[in-house]
Amino acid sequence: MIDPQRRWAAQADGKPDYAGLLTFGGLPYSEDPVDLAGADVAIVGAPMDELVSDKPGTRFGPRAIRAASAPHGAHLEAGIDALSALRVIDYGDAAVLPADPEGSHAAIRAIVAEVAAAGVMPVVLGGDHSVAKPEGEGLASVHGPVGMVHFDTHTDTAELQWGKVLAHGSPMYHLVADGHVDPRRYVQIGLRGYWPGPVEFGWQREQGITSFFAHDVRDRGIRAVVEEAIAIVGDGPVLLTVDVDVLDPAFAPGTGTPEPGGLTPTELLWACRTVAAGLDLVGSDVVEVAPTAVGSADVTALVADRIVRETLTGVALRRAGSS
Amino acid sequence: MIDPQRRWAAQADGKPDYAGLLTFGGLPYSEDPVDLAGADVAIVGAPMDELVSDKPGTRFGPRAIRAASAPHGAHLEAGIDALSALRVIDYGDAAVLPADPEGSHAAIRAIVAEVAAAGVMPVVLGGDHSVAKPEGEGLASVHGPVGMVHFDTHTDTAELQWGKVLAHGSPMYHLVADGHVDPRRYVQIGLRGYWPGPVEFGWQREQGITSFFAHDVRDRGIRAVVEEAIAIVGDGPVLLTVDVDVLDPAFAPGTGTPEPGGLTPTELLWACRTVAAGLDLVGSDVVEVAPTAVGSADVTALVADRIVRETLTGVALRRAGSS
Amino acid sequence: MIDPQRRWAAQADGKPDYAGLLTFGGLPYSEDPVDLAGADVAIVGAPMDELVSDKPGTRFGPRAIRAASAPHGAHLEAGIDALSALRVIDYGDAAVLPADPEGSHAAIRAIVAEVAAAGVMPVVLGGDHSVAKPEGEGLASVHGPVGMVHFDTHTDTAELQWGKVLAHGSPMYHLVADGHVDPRRYVQIGLRGYWPGPVEFGWQREQGITSFFAHDVRDRGIRAVVEEAIAIVGDGPVLLTVDVDVLDPAFAPGTGTPEPGGLTPTELLWACRTVAAGLDLVGSDVVEVAPTAVGSADVTALVADRIVRETLTGVALRRAGSS
Amino acid sequence: MIDPQRRWAAQADGKPDYAGLLTFGGLPYSEDPVDLAGADVAIVGAPMDELVSDKPGTRFGPRAIRAASAPHGAHLEAGIDALSALRVIDYGDAAVLPADPEGSHAAIRAIVAEVAAAGVMPVVLGGDHSVAKPEGEGLASVHGPVGMVHFDTHTDTAELQWGKVLAHGSPMYHLVADGHVDPRRYVQIGLRGYWPGPVEFGWQREQGITSFFAHDVRDRGIRAVVEEAIAIVGDGPVLLTVDVDVLDPAFAPGTGTPEPGGLTPTELLWACRTVAAGLDLVGSDVVEVAPTAVGSADVTALVADRIVRETLTGVALRRAGSS
Amino acid sequence: MIDPQRRWAAQADGKPDYAGLLTFGGLPYSEDPVDLAGADVAIVGAPMDELVSDKPGTRFGPRAIRAASAPHGAHLEAGIDALSALRVIDYGDAAVLPADPEGSHAAIRAIVAEVAAAGVMPVVLGGDHSVAKPEGEGLASVHGPVGMVHFDTHTDTAELQWGKVLAHGSPMYHLVADGHVDPRRYVQIGLRGYWPGPVEFGWQREQGITSFFAHDVRDRGIRAVVEEAIAIVGDGPVLLTVDVDVLDPAFAPGTGTPEPGGLTPTELLWACRTVAAGLDLVGSDVVEVAPTAVGSADVTALVADRIVRETLTGVALRRAGSS
Amino acid sequence: MIDPQRRWAAQADGKPDYAGLLTFGGLPYSEDPVDLAGADVAIVGAPMDELVSDKPGTRFGPRAIRAASAPHGAHLEAGIDALSALRVIDYGDAAVLPADPEGSHAAIRAIVAEVAAAGVMPVVLGGDHSVAKPEGEGLASVHGPVGMVHFDTHTDTAELQWGKVLAHGSPMYHLVADGHVDPRRYVQIGLRGYWPGPVEFGWQREQGITSFFAHDVRDRGIRAVVEEAIAIVGDGPVLLTVDVDVLDPAFAPGTGTPEPGGLTPTELLWACRTVAAGLDLVGSDVVEVAPTAVGSADVTALVADRIVRETLTGVALRRAGSS
Repeated sequence: MIDPQRRWAAQADGKPDYAGLLTFGGLPYSEDPVDLAGADVAIVGAPMDELVSDKPGTRFGPRAIRAASAPHGAHLEAGIDALSALRVIDYGDAAVLPADPEGSHAAIRAIVAEVAAAGVMPVVLGGDHSVAKPEGEGLASVHGPVGMVHFDTHTDTAELQWGKVLAHGSPMYHLVADGHVDPRRYVQIGLRGYWPGPVEFGWQREQGITSFFAHDVRDRGIRAVVEEAIAIVGDGPVLLTVDVDVLDPAFAPGTGTPEPGGLTPTELLWACRTVAAGLDLVGSDVVEVAPTAVGSADVTALVADRIVRETLTGVALRRAGSS
Repeated sequence: MIDPQRRWAAQADGKPDYAGLLTFGGLPYSEDPVDLAGADVAIVGAPMDELVSDKPGTRFGPRAIRAASAPHGAHLEAGIDALSALRVIDYGDAAVLPADPEGSHAAIRAIVAEVAAAGVMPVVLGGDHSVAKPEGEGLASVHGPVGMVHFDTHTDTAELQWGKVLAHGSPMYHLVADGHVDPRRYVQIGLRGYWPGPVEFGWQREQGITSFFAHDVRDRGIRAVVEEAIAIVGDGPVLLTVDVDVLDPAFAPGTGTPEPGGLTPTELLWACRTVAAGLDLVGSDVVEVAPTAVGSADVTALVADRIVRETLTGVALRRAGSS
Repeated sequence: MIDPQRRWAAQADGKPDYAGLLTFGGLPYSEDPVDLAGADVAIVGAPMDELVSDKPGTRFGPRAIRAASAPHGAHLEAGIDALSALRVIDYGDAAVLPADPEGSHAAIRAIVAEVAAAGVMPVVLGGDHSVAKPEGEGLASVHGPVGMVHFDTHTDTAELQWGKVLAHGSPMYHLVADGHVDPRRYVQIGLRGYWPGPVEFGWQREQGITSFFAHDVRDRGIRAVVEEAIAIVGDGPVLLTVDVDVLDPAFAPGTGTPEPGGLTPTELLWACRTVAAGLDLVGSDVVEVAPTAVGSADVTALVADRIVRETLTGVALRRAGSS
Repeated sequence: MIDPQRRWAAQADGKPDYAGLLTFGGLPYSEDPVDLAGADVAIVGAPMDELVSDKPGTRFGPRAIRAASAPHGAHLEAGIDALSALRVIDYGDAAVLPADPEGSHAAIRAIVAEVAAAGVMPVVLGGDHSVAKPEGEGLASVHGPVGMVHFDTHTDTAELQWGKVLAHGSPMYHLVADGHVDPRRYVQIGLRGYWPGPVEFGWQREQGITSFFAHDVRDRGIRAVVEEAIAIVGDGPVLLTVDVDVLDPAFAPGTGTPEPGGLTPTELLWACRTVAAGLDLVGSDVVEVAPTAVGSADVTALVADRIVRETLTGVALRRAGSS
Repeated sequence: MIDPQRRWAAQADGKPDYAGLLTFGGLPYSEDPVDLAGADVAIVGAPMDELVSDKPGTRFGPRAIRAASAPHGAHLEAGIDALSALRVIDYGDAAVLPADPEGSHAAIRAIVAEVAAAGVMPVVLGGDHSVAKPEGEGLASVHGPVGMVHFDTHTDTAELQWGKVLAHGSPMYHLVADGHVDPRRYVQIGLRGYWPGPVEFGWQREQGITSFFAHDVRDRGIRAVVEEAIAIVGDGPVLLTVDVDVLDPAFAPGTGTPEPGGLTPTELLWACRTVAAGLDLVGSDVVEVAPTAVGSADVTALVADRIVRETLTGVALRRAGSS
Repeated sequence: MIDPQRRWAAQADGKPDYAGLLTFGGLPYSEDPVDLAGADVAIVGAPMDELVSDKPGTRFGPRAIRAASAPHGAHLEAGIDALSALRVIDYGDAAVLPADPEGSHAAIRAIVAEVAAAGVMPVVLGGDHSVAKPEGEGLASVHGPVGMVHFDTHTDTAELQWGKVLAHGSPMYHLVADGHVDPRRYVQIGLRGYWPGPVEFGWQREQGITSFFAHDVRDRGIRAVVEEAIAIVGDGPVLLTVDVDVLDPAFAPGTGTPEPGGLTPTELLWACRTVAAGLDLVGSDVVEVAPTAVGSADVTALVADRIVRETLTGVALRRAGSS
């Protein structure tokens, strides 16, 4: 384990964000399973984009999110510093391979399972949304079928995309069909646009999946939607998966299939924290970040980092409350 | 007529957006008037920017909107697929000429009139907002004086701009003065900033033009404003003209005269659909798109495409309701 | 004094924004103290960025704001043209020096004091937020301790940052500690994120500083917050200081320490105007603008210009009302 | 077949590059095999990037090259207008599929074979360099084993890359190993950097492949190198394949694995024309173009277009000379 | 006249480039004809782009060149400081108007004539290359027909472009045809690409215009070409006109009609200085600069500034030598 | 020490560049002095930019160079793999502090001295060129006065810049004046532009410093210049310092004070390797890299990495030769 803060130990303000080893939040870094012991949360990168249907680039997402990540400090609304209240480490990237999505999925599945088996919550930095498949499989291998809160423009519940099982529009179908996600404890929030069609929505209804559309958020407000979502998911292990394209493209331009008319960060950041505080998260992710600028200047990676941070803040609040 | 989907006919998901002939929505393409027969809507590009007062670049707008355009699929809120419900073709670009705005206007006027005369609704992709002048003239030559719903930061009702009739700040004056637009059926929505001045607003009042400002939307809500606009315009042929700068620059940075404090896509996309569903549109446009990035990464062209798509969705809803 | 409009005097529409001498709003330019006589407001640039904690670039802020600035014209909501109602000049930049923040601060302090002593309101274009320190010192040297309305993500009330007094996160501590700002007349609006910590907030409470967080704006609305802020600050001289990062990064991406979840321009622009109309401003600024694009294409400089313009509009309204 | 020039038929200068249907050089467009009859050259896009080892984005290459392509006109040095001297059509894109490189390769192989079988020279616009594999296979299926002139930083002769046959660093190995390219008639020009290693170079030597490094061009001059290359390849059918990264990154920044120290356009453009004029080309390509800007502003797509244009100019010179 | 250095008078290093009034080289600024007296050179902006055939944006050229311009200092090769040896002022921009190219041309013609009539050498910052027409007319009105050294990719000698006299591809035809430029003293350097055609080159030959192509520079070297050009132009007044697209697009990407295979700055900068030192320049320009980045980060504006600076250095050398 | 390759140990091609821990060349990382034992070279970042005179941003240089760095592999011209032949580690960044250049310099001086004292060659990634001062001081504290080969546009030999000792234009003056660099063994290569002036050049001559200008490279060739430089520096310890702005801005646009007319990478990369192979380097650096794009897409960081790599290749060649 390397602590990037060590060289700045004499400084009250710690390490500048732009200097020193690049880790999530400037947190300690390890690739050694021994260091999972004693951790609450492990950040895991899943840098791949071979399965996208439009603009690629999410292989650079994990590195960009780390470069945009905020150091420790108490959340000004929640009043708790998740990076201090929880023992969080940066566990590096899964051993993905270029042009080998099956191999990359296997590596993601293995590292998520390894982390989860150690009693640690994995937080996955994508990568295209196909990574939710091995992530959900890895979690379910430890926790059994999980509930899911899924922020996204798209349902990602195609059985096949352009004839293929592995795609960034199909992971949720297979997680449900293969028994890794319990459809009655699966809630989608933010859907809009022109995809998918009646086949997929018909299948979703049969399965008992709950969908909240962007127009539901517009009309009912994010609070009502999230409260209902929490009630539906209820007790039991939960995966929170956040496709950054659920935001309006103004707030997250660096993504492959943007769709105007999305949520605002004010809505989404509150929602992630509230979901994390209200449910028993065993894993979470933020995906589809295709950065376009350097460091904190990349607004998409920046908001992706804050999505993670709000999630961890909710987890910290929940654990503080339950202690 | 060329159908860009043909080579992918065996695929349930059709053609990838980034591959194949570049047409609006991946729709069939024709430049032959024969193909207007049987169409409901024809997409027409008007790539010019010689008449702007600040940053140019809208000559690249039509191509960028096509590159950002979404393929067929049912609208997740409206429940109808406009590109299937309506017979839409991409009719190519008007025969504009560099450094010859008069010639370009003549070409736009001719193609709009040709389309309208065939009983087809032209949807114009600008181009600077000066294109509304030949567009309105072409429509009025077929339909007589039209009503107009005009989303914009600016009224574009100067008689002269820097001493010239042809400019992107003057088309609405001349459409009204020349009898092509009925001022009592002309409603502006989204006005803000510092232009125009008392002369233009005085003239507008004399004509009976209705103005809703951005602060009206802020204070009364987009629903109330749009409902009142629909009531004012009432029965009869209508042109819907949308300057993308009516949006806040965060949502449409690629435009020549951006003004902070604008509408959100959540507001505007709903509004376009609602206007189209509530009035008898004989033509529409989206203008002032000056793209800055590639393909779907260009957020301004992206939202411009969705403005068109919502408009067509409204038209499809209206026609479905009236059948 | 040079008037950039002179060569276009025959034109009703004046000088195009992209042509002629680059001054704020196309206003007359002078560096001669004689020209302060008769002025109401003087625009002063403070181009420096040596004191930032993350991304630099604000040394290019003043020039970018001038390039994005709107010419004269009546505000479409307020109904007054601040650039006509007030006598505003562009007084150029303070004589800052590269790699010499102490020297640059001295120059800023001197020019602000010079302007204020002439009975003119300085409007400072930053520059990193450290410039608020010499700005507040210069104002207080003329007006005595001032109240302050401070829009920002961050409180900027660290005593030291990385061990240093001079930093962009510390100016407000020293303005209060040195008696230049009256903490009971000091209101912060828009705070969010993860900084500062308990030491700074504890000190703020002891001093009697009032903080409104971004979640207060979200929950109570900008109107209620601003009204309460005006009441707290009350009578007496006031400095309005606006860190552009108070906006969500979508609306102001060109800044060094962006934080998602911020205000919208619709909120902030109204707020600046209302604060300026409701209080006795003796100075104002907009800071932390690190431009990334050319001319009016730079959305951050654009909204920064409108922040200044709304402030001046409020000042003009107040003076019109009191006359 | 659609002729994009038709609407501008009255204009001596033809269609503006930014207007009208987007085809290569503004040439006629067809996807119908019937139109191959009578053609000399068919432009074929191969938009895919699933097999890259670093930055993706070449799926947008064909569209960008078309947007940057120059219309007809005589080459100012060669004195011949290739687009008039040859009958060139834009035959559209191969029916590639996202996340299905095998399927995409099959489509590329089929369309290249179809074109070649019709006696037409295919010019492929990539796409990552893996497309050379199906392209070479398609050509060899018609012409038998071909010679190859290969401009590139990298040899692309790995047997496996990250354990996979299909990759953008392996096509040349398999074209040779499978008998589609004759290694004694295969010349590489421009190699530099740190890849591949002794295994690949050993295999190359065994096969009789000729390599000219960037330092050979630096030391001997491009003319001597190209003359020797032409002599080595000699009579018989030849594929000219150009990876745009053979250029220094200053001249072609939009590519996935750039390497400083490369050729200049002055060298490469002359070389492509000379190779085409001196050998019996049956196919050519330009690959690894990952555009980053709009239209002709994308310098990488621009130089890629000129690589194609010089090649066609050479072909036209050769055919003019042999008639 | 305003001297931007005045506030920094105590500093040996003068004003930082990014601070203070934006003028060329930080030189004194005036719009008053009185200040022409005593000047050797006047910088004049011509910000327009309404006459381009492809990408616009040169209306932002003059401001960008000023932002990229270097302050005084001796040229490290020539050993003379042109900005000290010559009395140079920034005379501001011509009173151009949006969407009124005729009006803009009249303003450019007038200001160039005014400067020339005062015995001052105008240096014009474009603007699209159409500005050479009024510039040449203005010069010839004072000096009679002038010789011309013309660095460019294109000859710009079309009689009409898309049917129009006013265009950026036609100024040289009309300058010659109207007797303002002596064709036997007119030399073009750097021609390449695919335009114009036999009609224009035929006319050029008839007139006695001399053309050096980019391949002449490649084959004979820039020194031989420039020496021959100087000999051809010989004694008498000369206009030096430099289209920045004569450079390879790597060195000047921010231009509207870039063409790969161009000159390098090492060649062009030497050439401009040598031409200026060897001929009797009465005016010069640099045109077609369409900036894409901020300040000195814009490489095209940067090299454009150095083109001006080398020209002035040559003028200074010549005058030093002749004194 | 962490080895980023470990998770990919089963792969012949190692770790993809975009995945895993971000270290230089994917090399092992340590911040522990113990790991200096056994190393030949240690990479050290110096991320600061508070001392620049124009555009900042070099604080992001070290991270960008790491992101653009090439993994192991034999140099295709030199035939040796420096990253295998030498034991190279990434030793992290010096403990720099924002807004505290004195503190940052102290940290750089200490880490360079620590590395050098361990018998290891430090390779510094800047940072602005002011870092050469503490770097040279640290080296001289171990090795005594060093010779210096200095590639740059500027001499950086001002005694004061804007009145300050610490600046990016002054380090070389103080290194010489303080006895850390032997001026008779100090050679500058690539000087051009308009700075510095006679005072600095006079001082340089007095000291016996040798200057080669960009025009010397143009006229005599890089080989002759470098050979003479090696002869002048001769035996004894040497610091190689490379300001990336010695390259023409086309090849290195991401730098703060670019100057057209510079070297090409073909020249510079060969030169760095040759200097390193011909002299006894005890330290080297590459500075003034202000990245503007992501990962390997940043051409300036890319060429900066190759500057380091060529240097290490030269060192490896020298050590291989001497063994």
